[in-house]
Amino acid sequence: MEFGSDALGRLVDEFARLPGVGRKTARRLAFWVLKTDSEAVQRFAQALVDVKERVVFCNVCYNVTESSPCPICADVRRAGDLICVVEEPSDVLAVEATGEFRGRYHVLHGVLSPLDGVGPDDLKIKELLARVREQQPSEVILALNPDTEGDATAFYLQKLIAPLECAVSRIARGIPVGGDLEFADQVTLGRAIQGRERMH
Amino acid sequence: MEFGSDALGRLVDEFARLPGVGRKTARRLAFWVLKTDSEAVQRFAQALVDVKERVVFCNVCYNVTESSPCPICADVRRAGDLICVVEEPSDVLAVEATGEFRGRYHVLHGVLSPLDGVGPDDLKIKELLARVREQQPSEVILALNPDTEGDATAFYLQKLIAPLECAVSRIARGIPVGGDLEFADQVTLGRAIQGRERMH
Repeated sequence: MEFGSDALGRLVDEFARLPGVGRKTARRLAFWVLKTDSEAVQRFAQALVDVKERVVFCNVCYNVTESSPCPICADVRRAGDLICVVEEPSDVLAVEATGEFRGRYHVLHGVLSPLDGVGPDDLKIKELLARVREQQPSEVILALNPDTEGDATAFYLQKLIAPLECAVSRIARGIPVGGDLEFADQVTLGRAIQGRERMH
Repeated sequence: MEFGSDALGRLVDEFARLPGVGRKTARRLAFWVLKTDSEAVQRFAQALVDVKERVVFCNVCYNVTESSPCPICADVRRAGDLICVVEEPSDVLAVEATGEFRGRYHVLHGVLSPLDGVGPDDLKIKELLARVREQQPSEVILALNPDTEGDATAFYLQKLIAPLECAVSRIARGIPVGGDLEFADQVTLGRAIQGRERMH
């Protein structure tokens, strides 16, 4: 019996199941729990249960929400003819924080990644296509991460959406604001030149 | 409201409270919970509560246990006149795994570390001295980590225990088994030479 206590051993097992948490970290976390006051631990346990009980996915955009459709999909003041496609619910937050987008979202819950066994059916792609067909938005903005999987997914989506007579765009890749040309990698700088904007 | 869900935001807050877990990791863990089946999450929550309800510290050696005195302190087959002093409950496991020690333990729950504000009163030192006085063991073995804090704590304990007419020893520092002299640091190799054992 590890630690002379079944309960502690079980908690270590549970922590070790979390992604990115190894056995040593799990032990450290379990001992932290042991030293933390009961009330705080009770609150932690309740937060875990609450999330499973209350949080659902919006049946329109598949963002996380406590009521479906989510507040963004239910907000009539937002432009319904613009759909911003993102990988994860956290990306919705990132785009919202900019204040630059007042349309609706669609969360794919991942990107195509054949090596990890993620194919089109594992993502909310069918749902996106159905939504584009039904709502006929004027533009779908792909706000996927500018990496290999993001690029491949964007290309795949563009192929599927193009026949539906809907514009497809992708957020710009370039030098980050406050960045330095000298330290930018070649690909990024190349993209920034390709995607240059006319000033007059 | 973060994530369009209070419950999710609260769970992120709770994860972020864990030692070594930042806000980004906390989000990742919260989304993992969201994708994990309810039964597993329920089990995790229960494990947290169980630990707080069931696990106590042994009132003899201060190791973690579900019954005090702990199984080791209650085991009459173990030598009561040998006390092995360790920093943390996990160190008890490490020593037990060697099979080399059949005495009792005493867990300090830390080491002296003035910079972190850890003084003698924050550790189970008073309790160790009371135990030495009462049980009069023939030897106290200090199995503290061979670092600055461990060394300082060992020196401090030795000063306190010596007047109680009890031998105090410290586990050997030297080249790890399977190690290579060439790659050993100077201090370790120096200690190994100082602590050399006669072969005949």
